[in-house]
Amino acid sequence: MDLDLSAGVGELTARLVDVPSVSGDEAPLADALESALGVLPHLTLHRDGNAIVANTHLGRPQRVVLAGHIDTVPIADNVPSTVKNGVLHGCGSADMKAGVAVQLKLAASVTEPVMDVTYVFYDCEEIVSERNGLGRLSRHCPDRLAADFAILLEPTGGVVEGGCQGTMRAAISVSGERAHSARSWLGRNAIHEAGDVLEVLRGYQPRQPEVDGLTYREGLNAVGIAGGVAGNVIPDECVVTVNFRFAPDLSADQAADHVREVFGRWDVTIVDAAGGARPGLRYPAAASFVAAMGGTPRAKLGWTDVARFAELGIPAVNFGPGDPMQAHTRGEHVAISDIETCEAKMAAWLSGAP
Amino acid sequence: MDLDLSAGVGELTARLVDVPSVSGDEAPLADALESALGVLPHLTLHRDGNAIVANTHLGRPQRVVLAGHIDTVPIADNVPSTVKNGVLHGCGSADMKAGVAVQLKLAASVTEPVMDVTYVFYDCEEIVSERNGLGRLSRHCPDRLAADFAILLEPTGGVVEGGCQGTMRAAISVSGERAHSARSWLGRNAIHEAGDVLEVLRGYQPRQPEVDGLTYREGLNAVGIAGGVAGNVIPDECVVTVNFRFAPDLSADQAADHVREVFGRWDVTIVDAAGGARPGLRYPAAASFVAAMGGTPRAKLGWTDVARFAELGIPAVNFGPGDPMQAHTRGEHVAISDIETCEAKMAAWLSGAP
Repeated sequence: MDLDLSAGVGELTARLVDVPSVSGDEAPLADALESALGVLPHLTLHRDGNAIVANTHLGRPQRVVLAGHIDTVPIADNVPSTVKNGVLHGCGSADMKAGVAVQLKLAASVTEPVMDVTYVFYDCEEIVSERNGLGRLSRHCPDRLAADFAILLEPTGGVVEGGCQGTMRAAISVSGERAHSARSWLGRNAIHEAGDVLEVLRGYQPRQPEVDGLTYREGLNAVGIAGGVAGNVIPDECVVTVNFRFAPDLSADQAADHVREVFGRWDVTIVDAAGGARPGLRYPAAASFVAAMGGTPRAKLGWTDVARFAELGIPAVNFGPGDPMQAHTRGEHVAISDIETCEAKMAAWLSGAP
Repeated sequence: MDLDLSAGVGELTARLVDVPSVSGDEAPLADALESALGVLPHLTLHRDGNAIVANTHLGRPQRVVLAGHIDTVPIADNVPSTVKNGVLHGCGSADMKAGVAVQLKLAASVTEPVMDVTYVFYDCEEIVSERNGLGRLSRHCPDRLAADFAILLEPTGGVVEGGCQGTMRAAISVSGERAHSARSWLGRNAIHEAGDVLEVLRGYQPRQPEVDGLTYREGLNAVGIAGGVAGNVIPDECVVTVNFRFAPDLSADQAADHVREVFGRWDVTIVDAAGGARPGLRYPAAASFVAAMGGTPRAKLGWTDVARFAELGIPAVNFGPGDPMQAHTRGEHVAISDIETCEAKMAAWLSGAP
């Protein structure tokens, strides 16, 4: 499988879609990327599993990371790609082989960028966090990710989305006393009492804080509930699992404190947590990027891998071609003109065009 | 395994406990009962699987059924039986080998009762209803169960408990709209809305109706709740399973109508239902039995196999030695004097003592 990096970015996206790379099975695509990038003399390559890091070494005062995942969700009768009326259809077309194609085109064509560039292509973004390729790189070789600024080319509809909100799951356990349901007054029904937990959730007023100039929108919601012992038993436990999406002005620890306070009457167990990322738009590289891309940046509400850069102390934004609502759909598609626009704007920015 | 029916009823109970008969494994005990009863010339025997029906055939104008199950819940280090200070300990001692021992003693010793008697010993009472031996008999040979009155010798602490309440399970389904939990306002959270179902349950005022002179006590309770799609999804369904325990003045159909009305705002599915049994104490045989046993009869709140007799049109009560709270406990026990009292009273009643 040879990838022709001199092809147009739409054509290149189609070729990437045509190499299946469902999470865990990215080796053929990683091999193809390694071959295509390996012949470029201005780049140094490092491979870690099915992740590839390619960087310029021009000695520029600033370095930017352009990152994208090469895996997709499972194929749904939508490979190979098809093109109709200038729109490319296929698994991963929007999420995010269009962004990866932009990375590849920039890596091949912008040989003398005004800042050093580290291109990161990684695996296993669409599955459990433990297997995430960017997470693995940040553990194995954090120095190779070092930069002043990072851009994650996930689909944002061509708008800069700053930072991301954090996410946390907590289990709220309500206890009661078992009894035979024929004599329910001898017990205390934990499911009934869980109604109070749901009342707290329904009355909760989420914040909409402004962080570094962008407005985030928090949310606290039940995402699971389970209770019951048997069909003839008054249950003595009911667990409500809540998901707290919190703005990046709170750390994960602060978010946990908040959840414990909100549900102070019950037993609270933090199940998992991932801090968000501040938008970082006040950094010079970020500001110049936003200015170059145009439009009004907005807050990213969903958690994304920009938070992994935030953990490394690197401000990061989301910016890429394609509509994020197309992600993971059977009819996933992306307009080729959008990919071309993204490539052109980013090439101009990297080249230092006014 | 030979059972000596001339032994005292306490001794006989101990021997019954010493023959393990966990539900499904009653064959050895059923064999022993068949052998012991088979030599009694005044009884006719019928065996159906591990159930045995033994009846007198004296041509009396009235017939009474004395019924008991011979199976137990799983053994919990409490076989063989032990006796300490006049109390017999062991698996099934109270629930209900003491009652079975009373049946056996009466069957052997009261050879000329004033009414004909049908002794029913059946299997699989402690497990799923479909396998219940009394239910099987009522399908295979309902004529053999025909009687004017039935007494189920489950432990009632020596008090007549009339009839039983019905029980019904229903699933209350609350629907919503899925959304990504980072943008919860685009969805409608079914778990949050299930709070309204719990509110209805908490505000529900159960009836305490008097039926045929006994006061029942209804209950409507959640016994299960389940909802949730994934940790990052606003759930679009939550199901609350409720258990309605209803007095025997309501049929199962009427109980279903009531539950549908109470939860009229949601989708209600009746999961299963078993009607109760009216106490039937106005029937002459029942009245004479209550008078002979003494004490004030009370309503049976839990569902019992008396409802199977009610389905056959036979009024039935619960009456037997042992504390029902001992049932299914590791330390299950019964006072031997209580078994002896029960035997003596019932023998006198069957013999027509004034």
